[in-house]
Amino acid sequence: MTALFNEPAGFVAEALAGFARAHAGLIRYEPDPGYVVRANPAAKVALVSGGGSGHEPLHTGFVGAGMLDAAVPGAVFASPTAAQIRAAVRAADRGRGVLLVVKNYTGDVLNFSIAAELAAEDGIDVRTVLVADDLATDSADGPGRRGTAAVVAVEKIAGAAAEAGADLDAVADIATRVAASARTLALAFTACTAPGRDRPAFELGPDEIEFGVGIHGERGIEVRKAAPAAELVAQLAEPVVDALGLAAGEKVIALVNGLGATHGLELAVAHEELVSFLAARDIVVARALVGSYVTALDMKGCSITLVRAPAEFVDRWDAPVRTPALTW
Amino acid sequence: MTALFNEPAGFVAEALAGFARAHAGLIRYEPDPGYVVRANPAAKVALVSGGGSGHEPLHTGFVGAGMLDAAVPGAVFASPTAAQIRAAVRAADRGRGVLLVVKNYTGDVLNFSIAAELAAEDGIDVRTVLVADDLATDSADGPGRRGTAAVVAVEKIAGAAAEAGADLDAVADIATRVAASARTLALAFTACTAPGRDRPAFELGPDEIEFGVGIHGERGIEVRKAAPAAELVAQLAEPVVDALGLAAGEKVIALVNGLGATHGLELAVAHEELVSFLAARDIVVARALVGSYVTALDMKGCSITLVRAPAEFVDRWDAPVRTPALTW
Repeated sequence: MTALFNEPAGFVAEALAGFARAHAGLIRYEPDPGYVVRANPAAKVALVSGGGSGHEPLHTGFVGAGMLDAAVPGAVFASPTAAQIRAAVRAADRGRGVLLVVKNYTGDVLNFSIAAELAAEDGIDVRTVLVADDLATDSADGPGRRGTAAVVAVEKIAGAAAEAGADLDAVADIATRVAASARTLALAFTACTAPGRDRPAFELGPDEIEFGVGIHGERGIEVRKAAPAAELVAQLAEPVVDALGLAAGEKVIALVNGLGATHGLELAVAHEELVSFLAARDIVVARALVGSYVTALDMKGCSITLVRAPAEFVDRWDAPVRTPALTW
Repeated sequence: MTALFNEPAGFVAEALAGFARAHAGLIRYEPDPGYVVRANPAAKVALVSGGGSGHEPLHTGFVGAGMLDAAVPGAVFASPTAAQIRAAVRAADRGRGVLLVVKNYTGDVLNFSIAAELAAEDGIDVRTVLVADDLATDSADGPGRRGTAAVVAVEKIAGAAAEAGADLDAVADIATRVAASARTLALAFTACTAPGRDRPAFELGPDEIEFGVGIHGERGIEVRKAAPAAELVAQLAEPVVDALGLAAGEKVIALVNGLGATHGLELAVAHEELVSFLAARDIVVARALVGSYVTALDMKGCSITLVRAPAEFVDRWDAPVRTPALTW
């Protein structure tokens, strides 16, 4: 249950104000029409992302040096408007063009696409990368794979390229290649409860898990039996390894992500099991990020993302970053 | 519910191994007898802390440059042994002495005190600072106030003093002054469920909160009515302001801490309300830390800590830190 708020309608705006206040040295919040920008912009290609709220720290927590220049939050689990995105693009652009990082949802795709046209009318050079990593929605019909936790790797790696002075084409190119190299799968132990709702989006028995969930409280693809962490991690990791066609000797960046209400100790256990699972297949975890970075309000569960990682990606991953949620 | 583990008995050890693996550049885990140390120790006064597990990122997440040199985790909600602490003190000591940062719980106080005697026998100069900030347990009889989230401020500020080259007496002195300048109060919307247990530590009705909780799943001092965030924040902040005797014009460092399953958006709302509450009393939030830093497994709730903050504390707060959970 989302419990700490004043009234559901003002929840996101007040939270954004509080978040920006807590990180005033790094970011600034523009309440009208609603976006977050770097407090200290740099002369470089800009990255702008966004989407529904409720996934924090994504995307607002990734605004800062080495990652995003602006983030555009919608209402809880709802796309931002094209007008919001256009305003953020204008604010972020430094004359070298803007890359839009868009997760694959119908509303986001539509609104970012309208915003891209409007930005072009504003004389801003815009490219778009679509992130569509969620294997649970990998079917030929329908809107295609949802965009989930892989977006963190896209924003980090392409953000580092932009910070290092790459031009718009090069930034768009590496972002596209990272997105193509990443797949994700998630499971949940409990659903989430939006502000003002009195029950979770769905119910599970005590020995059940929801396999293949997304990040909007929707049901997954299957109810499965609860199991020890080693087995659950294998259920997530195996299809990801297969989908990427990862072979012995290959290197990956691994994201073990909590969906909102999963404890750090649990994610650390999942990471340990993931490294063992991959080691048995001679796949090397070159870098890892373990924590709650792409959440679904207070959903209890986790996702595993693997990114096939050539040295170029690892170098960009290692580049300095300074944002509210990621700093090294 | 804690859901992602293999078996309760091995939960903490596996999580520590996974956590250290995910932050291998910063920390190292010694499974026997069980402590975490800086990967790159520095020649300075060492800070060692610890306590029961389940509060992560406290304390293991605060090991690194500018904060702790070692952390000693016990089992879930149970003190580490004196032998563990002694081993961590030996590993952390660089010949300039060790400050033990101890939260006020009977088991921790006993075991850290035995470890301090053993370390003295080992020829190591040891001081201890006791952190006892929780107003919910502020009574004349009994063991006194529990140590909770204020320990983060003690570790950050004293850690910065040590990193800057202060001697053991000076590091112990500033730690003691920070601990004396900080008070905390917490509330919960739901209790936590330890690994292997099938129900939470206590139950609340849908319109109830537990006021004055600690960080071990214990009940608080009173069941109160659920209320908007502004009102709940005032219920927490007012006794803290009174206990510290904060007057108009004073500056504080504010910690708005999630207890484990509280979303970042909710904590950001609480922060916004706290700043308003304090501004109405002309109290200035000089610095703030908003996030889940001292948790009680998957308890849903938050704590508010205020630290009266002279310029010396703010300067030490601002000093660089590089740990798994806190980096700037």
